[in-house]
Amino acid sequence: MFEKEIYVHRRRELSSKFSSGVLLFLGNIENPINFEHNTYPFRQDSSFLYYFGIKSPKLATVVDIDAGETLLFGDEMTIDDIVWMGQQQTLREKAQWVGIAAIRPFHELQPYLEKVLKNSNQVRYLPPYQAHNKLLLQHVLGLSIDQIKPSVEMIQAVVTQRNIKATEEIAELEKAVDVAVDMHRLAIKMTRPGMHEYEISNAIQHLAQNRQMSFSYPPIVTKHGEILHNHIQYHKIKAGDILLNDSGVETALGYASDLTRSFPVGKRFNPLQEELYAVVLNAFKTAEAALKPGVAFKNIHLKACEALAEGLIQIGFMKGNAQDAVAAHAHALFFQCGLGHMLGLDVHDMEDLGEQYVGYTADEPKDTKTFGIKSLRLGKKLEAGNVVTVEPGIYIIPELTQMWAQQNLHHEFINYDLLNKHLDFGGIRIEDNYVIKDSGYHRLGKYLERELNEIYDLKDQGTD
Amino acid sequence: MFEKEIYVHRRRELSSKFSSGVLLFLGNIENPINFEHNTYPFRQDSSFLYYFGIKSPKLATVVDIDAGETLLFGDEMTIDDIVWMGQQQTLREKAQWVGIAAIRPFHELQPYLEKVLKNSNQVRYLPPYQAHNKLLLQHVLGLSIDQIKPSVEMIQAVVTQRNIKATEEIAELEKAVDVAVDMHRLAIKMTRPGMHEYEISNAIQHLAQNRQMSFSYPPIVTKHGEILHNHIQYHKIKAGDILLNDSGVETALGYASDLTRSFPVGKRFNPLQEELYAVVLNAFKTAEAALKPGVAFKNIHLKACEALAEGLIQIGFMKGNAQDAVAAHAHALFFQCGLGHMLGLDVHDMEDLGEQYVGYTADEPKDTKTFGIKSLRLGKKLEAGNVVTVEPGIYIIPELTQMWAQQNLHHEFINYDLLNKHLDFGGIRIEDNYVIKDSGYHRLGKYLERELNEIYDLKDQGTD
Repeated sequence: MFEKEIYVHRRRELSSKFSSGVLLFLGNIENPINFEHNTYPFRQDSSFLYYFGIKSPKLATVVDIDAGETLLFGDEMTIDDIVWMGQQQTLREKAQWVGIAAIRPFHELQPYLEKVLKNSNQVRYLPPYQAHNKLLLQHVLGLSIDQIKPSVEMIQAVVTQRNIKATEEIAELEKAVDVAVDMHRLAIKMTRPGMHEYEISNAIQHLAQNRQMSFSYPPIVTKHGEILHNHIQYHKIKAGDILLNDSGVETALGYASDLTRSFPVGKRFNPLQEELYAVVLNAFKTAEAALKPGVAFKNIHLKACEALAEGLIQIGFMKGNAQDAVAAHAHALFFQCGLGHMLGLDVHDMEDLGEQYVGYTADEPKDTKTFGIKSLRLGKKLEAGNVVTVEPGIYIIPELTQMWAQQNLHHEFINYDLLNKHLDFGGIRIEDNYVIKDSGYHRLGKYLERELNEIYDLKDQGTD
Repeated sequence: MFEKEIYVHRRRELSSKFSSGVLLFLGNIENPINFEHNTYPFRQDSSFLYYFGIKSPKLATVVDIDAGETLLFGDEMTIDDIVWMGQQQTLREKAQWVGIAAIRPFHELQPYLEKVLKNSNQVRYLPPYQAHNKLLLQHVLGLSIDQIKPSVEMIQAVVTQRNIKATEEIAELEKAVDVAVDMHRLAIKMTRPGMHEYEISNAIQHLAQNRQMSFSYPPIVTKHGEILHNHIQYHKIKAGDILLNDSGVETALGYASDLTRSFPVGKRFNPLQEELYAVVLNAFKTAEAALKPGVAFKNIHLKACEALAEGLIQIGFMKGNAQDAVAAHAHALFFQCGLGHMLGLDVHDMEDLGEQYVGYTADEPKDTKTFGIKSLRLGKKLEAGNVVTVEPGIYIIPELTQMWAQQNLHHEFINYDLLNKHLDFGGIRIEDNYVIKDSGYHRLGKYLERELNEIYDLKDQGTD
């Protein structure tokens, strides 16, 4: 946990945005795998962590604006619990650490809220994403599932705070990046023809666990980097393959890292792989250099897209003018997704609160229609204290290419004849994490090799 | 997957128990961690796996007794899905593998069931344990949460089948045990003073993952074996500590293993540790030798308890007559839990279906009051084809001992004076997995060292 004052300050700031009513926060539970008592690893809800810091299941809190008080609803261990699970820190002790004095049994939450509602005071809450908390909201507020209406004001107040990372949060994020850097170096060094994808994934998980961290998301470790959400890892890899490793960890406090490197399984890339790697690296550096307060992330995305298109034109996969191609969204055949997203207590920070609030503004809403840009999670103007990923890539997706070719889509920008000869190319992505500073940006954590000669050097070192 | 005929046969057998109505099975979903699209590893529901074999999220099936037909409700991938997740086996192909021809879009489940209910046909279903499926039952059957009433007939029919493991299931369980045996040997060999508990846990997970298996439950790897549900693994271990390792894996088809060994962190146990180890091992062998059809597992549990009490009397922690002590439940101060449980597609097999059906019968119901025996998950008569764990132990729980001592509970059987000198002893458990045969039993998988000299030999070998 951070120091008590940090949590008290965060709650005071939140409260100051409201003139009356109560703010209800639901913690997460231990979710069952295949029966009630066989559960997945517990992960506290990120907004709950942010304001209350307690990493235990079955808690709820109420910030009572009128009374100026925070109540924690939860149960102490019974002697039976102690026999089975051992004596642990009490809930009262945990609450004291984060500056909460008022503790109530969990079953008092429902009558408490009933009274609030009777006094026609407003109960505001955030969007539930776990089914258990949807059921709980039904129960404690006497609602049907269709009547659950999260508070936009509360979402906006939380986003405004979590948007800007404080010094102590940056320090946590740097820790998460540092461990991820070691994971990525291990992956580059250990990968050899004849291995299976999962061996690399398992080895980097082992490294993270021995640093007492866990993956912040299911890692993507694949020779099919063109499959963007690829969690299949059973393939055997061979010389000539590109391995894409997209993985990060979270710290004990819940702060995440999210890095990607793409590298040869054999000793070196082939010439085409080297050329496309250079194109992605150039787009990556273009985007990185553009990071600063006041610039819309959408414009940085478009700059990176132009850099990608220019490179693809030089190689011959695209043709015409790069700016025109990007304006027509033709580049999206190779770069179907967004340049990056917010990072913090979630790997896609605050995704549960809604992209329209986290990544965009009412004045500049998201384009939800156009292929490519509709997958950009972050478009709004950057502010000092934002933490973001930058992750351009080139992906040749056979099914998509064939679909576009059949429709002869953007034939003025796409050289289908050449492309059809390289449908098995795969995908390349490079990704680092940044905090926006008044002066521009600061790359989080240790430097992770990204130049081809640096990556080749790591490969030559190996692990033995 | 097993061969198609196996699934067809299982469903035919199930259907034969009912004369009309429909049986509704809900598969599991990908459960969110901290936002909707960051999910825990998918695990299909075990009864769904047993009858339908398909390991994909968002499926439901209906076994229509009247029409003699099985319907699968689920959605094929869209082109968007293929772009993001790659071309995979279609749902139709997966369904064909398990002998299901009729596939409907998932959204047709609700109107389908509405029609069934209108015709006043019965819809039977199993108890939901994931909150998502409670919400889904509300939706598809038009129920409030309080109206969800699982079918006892359906539970009993499923238990009757899953109770008895077929040859192909035993083969899977043996695979799961074999990998767990290697994990346990690695743990014994690698453990050295100065390590942390999590290093051993991480190493055995790494071994399992590289065999393409995952833990079947969160492992217990602890120097505090007396804490029965202990998932804390941050302690540093030293010479003189006992390490208890309770861990197993599940195969790709979902079959679990569940083994425990307790061993010295240093080179050897001290004399008291050796004595108590011998007591547990003797109780273990007593129970193992008693496994055969027709014997109530509760009686084997009591036999093991007597063996434990006899040993504890010889050492001096208990006094009086062992049989009397067990009849009075005085031994439960040292052995607070049950001797074992069913094992299969779940590590506590069918726990979601209810202990009263899986572990007991209406004629011989569970003792839910008496400390000790109330934690015995399995009491009923064994049948050939049952797969069970045997896992006696001795645990000295300081909090419990102090509570009993203050109440002077069972002072005629407990030697509190001696015991109070060894409150920091910890815990020892030994556990293997068995299938009941007409002739008695067969221990599943490779032999895992359990004699002290065998364990010392493994320790002396080490890992380097």
